[in-house]
Amino acid sequence: MASITNRQSSIPNSQGTICAVATAPGGALGIIRISGPQALEIVSHCFTKDLSAAQPGTLHYGHIRVGGEVVDEVVVSVFRAPRSYTGEDCVEISCHGSHYILNKVVELLIRHGARLANPGEFTQRAFLNGKMDLSQAEAVADLIASKTKATHDLAIRQLRGGISSELTTLRDQLLRLTSLLELELDFADHEELEFADRTELLTLARTIDRRVSQLADSFQTGNALKNGIPVAIVGAPNVGKSTLLNVLVGEERAIVSDIQGTTRDAIEDTIQLGGITFRFIDTAGIRHTDDCIEQLGIERTFAAIERASVVLWLIDKEPAAAEITGMRGRCTGKTLLIVQNKIDKGNGYCGIADLTLSAKYGKGLDELRERLISAVPTASDSDVIITNARHFEALCRAHDSLTRVLDGLTSSLPSDLIAEDLRLTLTSLAEITGGAITPLETLNNIFSHFCVGK
Amino acid sequence: MASITNRQSSIPNSQGTICAVATAPGGALGIIRISGPQALEIVSHCFTKDLSAAQPGTLHYGHIRVGGEVVDEVVVSVFRAPRSYTGEDCVEISCHGSHYILNKVVELLIRHGARLANPGEFTQRAFLNGKMDLSQAEAVADLIASKTKATHDLAIRQLRGGISSELTTLRDQLLRLTSLLELELDFADHEELEFADRTELLTLARTIDRRVSQLADSFQTGNALKNGIPVAIVGAPNVGKSTLLNVLVGEERAIVSDIQGTTRDAIEDTIQLGGITFRFIDTAGIRHTDDCIEQLGIERTFAAIERASVVLWLIDKEPAAAEITGMRGRCTGKTLLIVQNKIDKGNGYCGIADLTLSAKYGKGLDELRERLISAVPTASDSDVIITNARHFEALCRAHDSLTRVLDGLTSSLPSDLIAEDLRLTLTSLAEITGGAITPLETLNNIFSHFCVGK
Repeated sequence: MASITNRQSSIPNSQGTICAVATAPGGALGIIRISGPQALEIVSHCFTKDLSAAQPGTLHYGHIRVGGEVVDEVVVSVFRAPRSYTGEDCVEISCHGSHYILNKVVELLIRHGARLANPGEFTQRAFLNGKMDLSQAEAVADLIASKTKATHDLAIRQLRGGISSELTTLRDQLLRLTSLLELELDFADHEELEFADRTELLTLARTIDRRVSQLADSFQTGNALKNGIPVAIVGAPNVGKSTLLNVLVGEERAIVSDIQGTTRDAIEDTIQLGGITFRFIDTAGIRHTDDCIEQLGIERTFAAIERASVVLWLIDKEPAAAEITGMRGRCTGKTLLIVQNKIDKGNGYCGIADLTLSAKYGKGLDELRERLISAVPTASDSDVIITNARHFEALCRAHDSLTRVLDGLTSSLPSDLIAEDLRLTLTSLAEITGGAITPLETLNNIFSHFCVGK
Repeated sequence: MASITNRQSSIPNSQGTICAVATAPGGALGIIRISGPQALEIVSHCFTKDLSAAQPGTLHYGHIRVGGEVVDEVVVSVFRAPRSYTGEDCVEISCHGSHYILNKVVELLIRHGARLANPGEFTQRAFLNGKMDLSQAEAVADLIASKTKATHDLAIRQLRGGISSELTTLRDQLLRLTSLLELELDFADHEELEFADRTELLTLARTIDRRVSQLADSFQTGNALKNGIPVAIVGAPNVGKSTLLNVLVGEERAIVSDIQGTTRDAIEDTIQLGGITFRFIDTAGIRHTDDCIEQLGIERTFAAIERASVVLWLIDKEPAAAEITGMRGRCTGKTLLIVQNKIDKGNGYCGIADLTLSAKYGKGLDELRERLISAVPTASDSDVIITNARHFEALCRAHDSLTRVLDGLTSSLPSDLIAEDLRLTLTSLAEITGGAITPLETLNNIFSHFCVGK
């Protein structure tokens, strides 16, 4: 409980009773959320029923009233501390979803002593009251924003403590490493003992660092899943890149023309396949050119390949060996799909192609879609994947200090210097879940990206 | 209960368990509503907890799950027949407001036996199960759509049975009139008795007809409050009509120019004053002209006056007596406000003006706003005001048949012929609340204008 008090006292305005509309405007129903020590009292002032003796987990039908006038017929849900979302006394008013009613009810609540909640303030309170750690709080925002199965699954796993439990394991291992190192310190006067246990220390430090690195590396996948897998469609002019993009996206987004070099701007478009978002980058045809603007397009193509996870190389005839080598070189570490287009033209099969299609006649597209889905690094259900840049950055710092720990252990550095880097590692990892005292700035930054009412 | 069974059996598809998202997409929270005999069973299939023994009026925290995967952490509200909105077993799932989650939960519910609700189907069931009458059901849609205090107050009064209780009184009086008439029939062979009680009958019929007419007349006010009070700003060219509209609306909607006859199109704009919507109709300047397009503008001005409830005649000098007479003639039955503009120019006070202002310098606008508010026919809290065209139409038919009843009574028509018109009156009034068996077409027409989830 000490840490909870600590958390709250560092945040200005974390006291009092807050209220906000928690649903988007315009629905049949709307919900107004109230949280804080006076939640029940404040609602009782404008509700037909006195809620001061209301049992937790109960629903109450009645009217919201101002003077003798009925504002709406509502159902009120009562939650009591600590068994609520925020950990405080909470009330939710379910009313008709009109702008007028929602605003009027909030106005009444404020008149009776509540204040309007800041963005994310309900979740911030849940964090401050120890109902969830910081990585779980961040997952709430991700969950609300998630549009695909992939992003939803990542967010719900994080919300349910996937990262938190992983970090608890790492923390336990780091604490064990620290105590082993302290043991060594105690025996520092016995010189013959100094290096005796460093093999065990090294093994443990390497295990921890391997997991930290794995987690940091998972950010590439996590970030791609969260923001969409970048796919570059590249190939010679007039090979049908824009046509392919159009049929995949199902819209006439890119301008298709027979004139070579039509597509100069990198147009981004997305599709969803198998619950995953793919971001297509349509690029200018790759060829040698003296046209300055066209040249710029080609530079963009190379930049697009650089940014892509999947490169879809469209061909309509067998490319030269040098071209293939060049493309393979550019695509190291990426998935390269060589796709032969225009099979309707009867140009004959290119041996190098991974698959064949006709963008114009919509042939072979299902296989292409399958290939795209299987090109995505899939996370097994138990895998923890980092999707948050803040977590990634903390993991990188943890890895840096762990590298110094490993260097220190192998180069016989004194234990107290190594212990300092171990402390840094622990601090970096603790930032992710907010276990340590989190700077106010960090908290504000995290919760200000929430919507009001959450 | 017989009438309830009757109501349901006439509606196809009124059985089964229905579900729908009841909140607008994009909020922090979302609500999915389920109603019908299997509501608890269906939700139990995808919820962590079995709800079959759940007490009515209780909240349950848990997970919506598909297989081993968690879709969301939710709070489930349990309502049991007949104490629910629809009168059936009802469950509301409060989850995170992401598209993905809302769609996924609805998909799961459908997979377990629910079907997607039609627009307004929850309210339709409330009507079919006798939880509310038809005028109250219609008030639900009005309430959700209401944007101002005036429309909200009218809708909530209707929802709370304002019209219904008024119609019950009228029905009782009509039934009394019918029984008096039947009494007369019984004595029909005693010729000397035939006209004996017709004075009482006439008095009663006149009382009823007066109230029916009052209610029908209130539609003009109700409709104006619901759709906005139409205000025509008229006056000579360059008198500052567009400038006035601009300052009132607070936006540069109308193009202001010094060239005479700039405003040719009737631009509509609204403001809210004292909880009432005013619809301004900016019109072309009134003057004699040979310009065809300009002439069209003047015709529109006269049409605008025709449509307006309030005419705001802007002047900057004393108008000719004939002009004043002409304007007063056009504004019979409307509120005419003669407003002298450009007082900053020192033209001297026009005796005819109701108030003076300077649109350019924003002087005198508050008084104008006050005058506009007081120009609106206000309804006292106890007044019943008709806002629904369907109700208005039924009241007009009731008035027509009542007129025939009155004619019959004064012209010594036989009782049985008068009784027929009394029956028609009762039927017309019953249509408003849906007390009689309401044609399926009428019901479909009413509920199809609802949003889904209500």
